Amino acid sequence: MPQPEGTSADLPITDRTGLRRLKERGTHDREAIYAILDEGLLCHVGVNDDTPVVTPMAYARVDDYLYLHGAPGNRTLRLIASGVESCVTVTLLDALVLARSAFHHSMNYRCVMLFGRGSAVEDPEEKLAASAALLEHMASGRSADARMPTESELRSTLIVRFPIGEGSAKVRTGGPKDDEEDLDKPIWAGQIPFDLVARPGIPDERLPEGTVVPPYATRYPSRRPAV
Amino acid sequence: MPQPEGTSADLPITDRTGLRRLKERGTHDREAIYAILDEGLLCHVGVNDDTPVVTPMAYARVDDYLYLHGAPGNRTLRLIASGVESCVTVTLLDALVLARSAFHHSMNYRCVMLFGRGSAVEDPEEKLAASAALLEHMASGRSADARMPTESELRSTLIVRFPIGEGSAKVRTGGPKDDEEDLDKPIWAGQIPFDLVARPGIPDERLPEGTVVPPYATRYPSRRPAV
Repeated sequence: MPQPEGTSADLPITDRTGLRRLKERGTHDREAIYAILDEGLLCHVGVNDDTPVVTPMAYARVDDYLYLHGAPGNRTLRLIASGVESCVTVTLLDALVLARSAFHHSMNYRCVMLFGRGSAVEDPEEKLAASAALLEHMASGRSADARMPTESELRSTLIVRFPIGEGSAKVRTGGPKDDEEDLDKPIWAGQIPFDLVARPGIPDERLPEGTVVPPYATRYPSRRPAV
Repeated sequence: MPQPEGTSADLPITDRTGLRRLKERGTHDREAIYAILDEGLLCHVGVNDDTPVVTPMAYARVDDYLYLHGAPGNRTLRLIASGVESCVTVTLLDALVLARSAFHHSMNYRCVMLFGRGSAVEDPEEKLAASAALLEHMASGRSADARMPTESELRSTLIVRFPIGEGSAKVRTGGPKDDEEDLDKPIWAGQIPFDLVARPGIPDERLPEGTVVPPYATRYPSRRPAV
């Protein structure tokens, strides 16, 4: 697979990613960006289709690329494949932050915003590897368990590659930042943390008897790496 | 507050919302759209700032409008306030759908995509009502508990109003849709359902002794309405 230059370095600071506001929350650190991308399940892809269009999509990261896939007729994917400027955003919600004052209410989140131009994946080997990565991103081990795509299925899938070359992460953590004069007020303030929790898998009704239940179907592992 | 025409009717079918693919998953039903908007906590806002930019934001719905807020310098909000075409998308992830074949892997989700032009809220009363709605959207009862914004705080907040006038919802539910010839294969297939679960609130370190703990801080209620 092609590699953008300087893949081990942090992402460059550009006009679009210069983090104009609240600089302390932003980073161009590649590992921090990868950790967020690897934990998320959905991205929101923005393209200009005469007017802005924001579409949720599954994705997977392989090295310095995100892969997106869908039906060959999918307009957003076709636009990305055509090489237009696009934006891919992944957001993880960690907590509501309730301050004493309405003004200082906030959310704790981790977000990656990537800018760039994607391209269609044409090479069958890279398409197959991307298909496997998309399954692995859903559940580690899944690409070995599932029936992998036939040539005909691969032809019926549009896969695009989006470079992780320009972008940044923004992270908010911690409690409310109230004004000093509000601290004595008897108003509850704090965080309400959220977890995305997987329940046990619901087996399809038509599984043959004796089908082995994989571990991710019984107890889906936490997607957040241990700190 | 101004009301778009025909607010009780379903959203119109337009070129942008004609649901080209997988029609069975799409709807223009206003109540279905509201239910998704009212359950979500984050939207992803797409604007064209020379190139597409997708930004996560808190929001609240009041009747047929979404309200977004932030610092007056926030570029995405300023663009929306200027009346450019924008897209607001809210996505709820319900399950991973693991099929026998890689090709039929999918996700269960509920998503609303809205198109239109927003505008800045200038009227102080509407700004105050929107501020209250943004708190109520985070936790029912919060606008009565928190210290509401001063005039100066309201002046330091940019609030925009986005019409719920053109858009659609897309919903996928149910198990995998494998090809008939794969059903006999001994490959586990089914759904892995996800819940966004709130943990008990983490109180701020500097709460005065005796501060009453509101119910949403102890046991944050499920955001999904009972069916």
